[in-house]
Amino acid sequence: MARALIECVPNFSEGRRPEVIEAIVEPFKKTAGVYLFDYRADEDHNRLVVSLVGHPEEIQASLIEACKIAQKHIDMNTHQGAHPRIGAIDVIPFTPVSGIAMEECVALAHNFGERYFKETGIPVYYYEDAAKIPTRTRLEQIRKGQYEVLKEEAQTKPERHPDVGGPGLHPTAGASVIGARKFLVAFNINLNTTDVAVAKEIAKFMRASSGGFCHVKGIGLSLEDKGMVQVSMNLVDYEKNSIYRVLEMARMEAKRWGVSVAETEIYGMVPAAAMLDSASYYLQSNGFETDQVLELKLLQMMMED
Amino acid sequence: MARALIECVPNFSEGRRPEVIEAIVEPFKKTAGVYLFDYRADEDHNRLVVSLVGHPEEIQASLIEACKIAQKHIDMNTHQGAHPRIGAIDVIPFTPVSGIAMEECVALAHNFGERYFKETGIPVYYYEDAAKIPTRTRLEQIRKGQYEVLKEEAQTKPERHPDVGGPGLHPTAGASVIGARKFLVAFNINLNTTDVAVAKEIAKFMRASSGGFCHVKGIGLSLEDKGMVQVSMNLVDYEKNSIYRVLEMARMEAKRWGVSVAETEIYGMVPAAAMLDSASYYLQSNGFETDQVLELKLLQMMMED
Repeated sequence: MARALIECVPNFSEGRRPEVIEAIVEPFKKTAGVYLFDYRADEDHNRLVVSLVGHPEEIQASLIEACKIAQKHIDMNTHQGAHPRIGAIDVIPFTPVSGIAMEECVALAHNFGERYFKETGIPVYYYEDAAKIPTRTRLEQIRKGQYEVLKEEAQTKPERHPDVGGPGLHPTAGASVIGARKFLVAFNINLNTTDVAVAKEIAKFMRASSGGFCHVKGIGLSLEDKGMVQVSMNLVDYEKNSIYRVLEMARMEAKRWGVSVAETEIYGMVPAAAMLDSASYYLQSNGFETDQVLELKLLQMMMED
Repeated sequence: MARALIECVPNFSEGRRPEVIEAIVEPFKKTAGVYLFDYRADEDHNRLVVSLVGHPEEIQASLIEACKIAQKHIDMNTHQGAHPRIGAIDVIPFTPVSGIAMEECVALAHNFGERYFKETGIPVYYYEDAAKIPTRTRLEQIRKGQYEVLKEEAQTKPERHPDVGGPGLHPTAGASVIGARKFLVAFNINLNTTDVAVAKEIAKFMRASSGGFCHVKGIGLSLEDKGMVQVSMNLVDYEKNSIYRVLEMARMEAKRWGVSVAETEIYGMVPAAAMLDSASYYLQSNGFETDQVLELKLLQMMMED
């Protein structure tokens, strides 16, 4: 049995003090079974975004440690930054990668939320797939008015009470948003035309907000350097709205204007399953299993060690 | 820097005595950095085929150990089996998987051959990409007449002298064939027709032996249960003759008979690069790198640990 693998991208409200940033990421560097893919601090946002991959148990243990360090150094009463936030540890999303279903990731988020409050005293809101209240699915709704407004309203308005702890926020660390969400794939389609109206129109057909694919967000924009236009998308559920399906739909729509797909871009990380799914579709593979991929089988064996 | 990863599929002339088979594979099980993907003994062939993946140093160390155990237990003077062979340790092919070029794998085979002879006294022939004599590229040429003929001719005919050691073979273990070769991808294309002549004709267009792709072997055969025919192929260099290129060529040829591709099969293991190459082609990906695949980046990080 391969052990479950998750991604976690915690966001901390500290982007300016290098010694604090290094102290926060230290537990991720030293915990066996946790792989620190990346961490980026932004001074304007005054925010640190960390990318972790690993096993659920080890990720949670290292998070508790890192969050306690962040809690010690960050005071929301004096914190300033361009990015919306409600706490020293602002958001902790858990994302299934392999060997774990979304339902299990939701359970993990809920268990972690309880433990987190017990160990830090910081109240928790659940969001995305882990939301317990429908209006809390979207992060923006929870973060409305940010820390400064929430610290009042959490106490006075029942609909803004935290899911765990509260009603008042933590005096210095505020509150944290914990949840489970699918892996987001950034996928852009560049079209052989300079007419941005074509990209905007296609983006409209594709995205959920105007009635297209349920799990696609997208906009049309101009790529002046390339003499092309782009349908820039986020696939927020690559299992339901596969990369190939999105591409072929855009290609079909572009024909209406006699426009062709020049190239596509996958921006940032992508799970192997998302790429293999498209390879299998185009290759018409019958019965292809991801563990036929040598490196994926090797990874499984290494994780069982 | 990610460490090099290779595959190695050593073949031992023992398929009947379970205790000997287990003794031979023991070093592969216990050596850290060596992953035993599979081992299969065939009684009729009286042969053991082992699949290993790992780092070159650890693979070589475990091989030396396993080969000494095989040498101790197998006597070619009494060995019988349906599969052609020239030694107790019959063939040791090294195959690049990632972070290592074919030229480096050839150098590795040559270095290993010298060390192997020094430690076991078993003479070595180099084959495939590691062949030092052009007529030894193909295994069949080296194995002509098998152990029984070779043990005489190795001493009497200069063109049959081993590359390392000899001219006489080892008195009980015979000789070993060591080499480097590309990863072989087994790829079948099933066609929507019952006319096997179509599959045979397409296989002829595709394979190197009748003038098609330089690194494709293939035959046409009938799949009576499915009511289809199959072009059954081995892609012996998936970098030069990509899966997608082979498929699209077969599709194009099939049109001549109004026949379409019903499905394809990838049989057994395949390197990630072979699948990602096809995904990138069909998705028209610009600048896609394999380390954008989360699991492949994780694997690299785990290997650096």
